[in-house]
Amino acid sequence: MTPIAVAYITAAQGGGDSERWTRMLGEALGRPVDMRVWPNIGRAEDVTVALAWKAPGGALARFPNLRLIVSLGMGVDHLLLDAKLPADIPIVRIMDEGLIGQMSEYAIYYALRHHRAIPAYEASQRARQWKVEDFVDTADRRIGIMGLGAIGTDVARKFLGLGFPTSGWSRTPRNLVGIACHHGAAGLDAFLAGTDILVDVLPLTPETTGMIDGRLLGKLPKGAYFINMARGGHVVDADLLAALDSGHLSGATLDVFNEEPLPGSHPYWTHPKVLVTPHIAGETNPRTAAASVADNIRRLEAGQPLIHTIDRAAGY
Amino acid sequence: MTPIAVAYITAAQGGGDSERWTRMLGEALGRPVDMRVWPNIGRAEDVTVALAWKAPGGALARFPNLRLIVSLGMGVDHLLLDAKLPADIPIVRIMDEGLIGQMSEYAIYYALRHHRAIPAYEASQRARQWKVEDFVDTADRRIGIMGLGAIGTDVARKFLGLGFPTSGWSRTPRNLVGIACHHGAAGLDAFLAGTDILVDVLPLTPETTGMIDGRLLGKLPKGAYFINMARGGHVVDADLLAALDSGHLSGATLDVFNEEPLPGSHPYWTHPKVLVTPHIAGETNPRTAAASVADNIRRLEAGQPLIHTIDRAAGY
Repeated sequence: MTPIAVAYITAAQGGGDSERWTRMLGEALGRPVDMRVWPNIGRAEDVTVALAWKAPGGALARFPNLRLIVSLGMGVDHLLLDAKLPADIPIVRIMDEGLIGQMSEYAIYYALRHHRAIPAYEASQRARQWKVEDFVDTADRRIGIMGLGAIGTDVARKFLGLGFPTSGWSRTPRNLVGIACHHGAAGLDAFLAGTDILVDVLPLTPETTGMIDGRLLGKLPKGAYFINMARGGHVVDADLLAALDSGHLSGATLDVFNEEPLPGSHPYWTHPKVLVTPHIAGETNPRTAAASVADNIRRLEAGQPLIHTIDRAAGY
Repeated sequence: MTPIAVAYITAAQGGGDSERWTRMLGEALGRPVDMRVWPNIGRAEDVTVALAWKAPGGALARFPNLRLIVSLGMGVDHLLLDAKLPADIPIVRIMDEGLIGQMSEYAIYYALRHHRAIPAYEASQRARQWKVEDFVDTADRRIGIMGLGAIGTDVARKFLGLGFPTSGWSRTPRNLVGIACHHGAAGLDAFLAGTDILVDVLPLTPETTGMIDGRLLGKLPKGAYFINMARGGHVVDADLLAALDSGHLSGATLDVFNEEPLPGSHPYWTHPKVLVTPHIAGETNPRTAAASVADNIRRLEAGQPLIHTIDRAAGY
C-alpha cells in the first residue's frame, strides 16, 4: 500500500514522540506512514499532512502540497503565532480522550487538595499530631470552570459526578445537564461570585490574553482557589500574586505560565500559596489521539468535511 | 407533637455533634427530638432509640425500653465489641451519601497523587526545577477495591468514571457494570495480581482482622500502592512496613490504625513512603445521614421492616 508522507514538526528535541506517532497513526490508518521528522523533511513536495506542536516560524510554509495541518495539542495558539502560516490550509486539532481525562484528573486532584485541607494534614503529620480539620461539605464547595469546550465539559461533568455544585462560563452559550452555564461578558460576574474553586481551561486568544487580572480575581469570593491548566497568557502574574498576598485568594495551582519553562527566579516557585507543575496537566497521547487524526486524513482524501476544525478568527 | 426520646452515646467529648443531630433528625422526622446526651440520659425508661458511635461498654444495656440501635458510622465493629450489648435489639447503621462521597474523594485524591507522580513534582518545585516525569496512561493503572458494599461500590464507580480499569473483591459475589468483580478466598489472588492501587474499604470482622499481612501484600505486583480508609485492624503493621521497606510496595496512605489516635512514636508518622491522616476519610454528616435514621424510626413505629440492618454474625 502507498505510504502517506506526513511531516512531524515540533519544538521537542530528538524527534519527540515521532516514533509512537508513526506507529499509532499507521495502525489507525491501516497503511504505512512515511514520517518526515523536522528538520529532515526530504522532498517537501511529497508531504500533504503536517503534525505540528510549536513548529518553528515558517516551517509549515515549506510544503508546497500541504493540504492539512494537525495541531498535536488541543490548543492552537502555538500555530496562529506563525506569521508565515499558510492561509488557506485547514487546521484541525487532535481530539484526545486520554489528554482530556488527564486534564480532569489534574483539576480534581488539586481541587480535592484544597477542599479536603490536605496541606493542614501534611503539616500535622510532620508534627506527629492527630488533628482533625474543620469539615466543608462537598455540597458547599462550588466549582467554576472557565471554558466549556471538550476539556471543560469533561472536567465539569466529573466534578458534578463527585457531588460538587458545578458551574461553567464560556464565550458563547452552552447547555450541560446539571451544570449552571453562564456566558459572555454579561454572565461573568455572576459566574465568578458563585465560584469557590476556579478552573481555567479557556483557549488563548486575543480576548482571553490577560483576562485573569486583579479585577476578575476580585469578583471571586474571599478565600477562593485558582487552578490554571490552560495557558499562562491568560494571567496577569502581578495581579495574581497580589490577590494571593492580600489573602483574597487562598491559593493557586499553576501548570502553565507566561514564560515556559518558568524561570528559576520567578516568585511562583517559592510562594507558599502556589503549587507549580511543568505543563503536565494533559499530555498528548498518540495511543488515544491517533484515531481522530486518521479520521481527518480519510475525510480529506475522500473530500468529506473535516472534524475538530479550527476557526482562525476565533482563535480556537 | 410528642417528642421522641433518643440517646446520643459517643466517645466524643462535650456532646460531639449532638446539637446538629437533634436539629437534623427533628427536621427529618417532622417532630421534636428529646436528645439525651450520654452520660446525662435522664429517665432511661423513656429512651427507645439510641444513636451510638464507640459507646462506652455497657452503656446501651442501660435502656430497658430500647428498641433500635443506630450506628453513627457505617462500620459497626465499634458496637459489636461491647460484651453487654443487648442481644435482641436490632442494629441499623446510617446510610450517609455525604460520608460515602467523602470516602470516594479521599481514595481518588490519594490514588491520583500516586498515579500522577505528584511527590516528584513537589520535589521539583522545591528545587525550582522544570522537570516532566514519565507518563503512565490511565488505562494502564489498575485500581482494586476490597469491599463492595455501599462505599466500595461508589468508590469503584467513580474510579471507573475517571477512566481507570477497576476491579473489586468482596466476601460474597457482586455484579457491578464495568467492574471486574472477584469474591471469596478463591478470587483473592487474581484480584491482587491485577491491582496497582489497592483501596481497602472492608468491614472489620473476625475474618478481616489481620487479613492484610505479608502474604496478601506479596501477591500485589511490585510497586503497588495501598490506601486504607477502612479499619486499622485489617493490617499487620510490621508486615506493611516490611513491604514498604523492601520496595515491594511504593507507598501507602493510611487513615485508620490499630491504635487511634496513632501514638506519636509510631513509625508510620515519619516513614518516607507513608501518608498519615487522622481517620478523616469520611465523617458522618447529620445533614446527609439524618434521613436514613428518620426512615428507620418511622419503620420501627409502623412495624415495618427496617433497612440497612446489621447481621451480627457476619459483623457488618
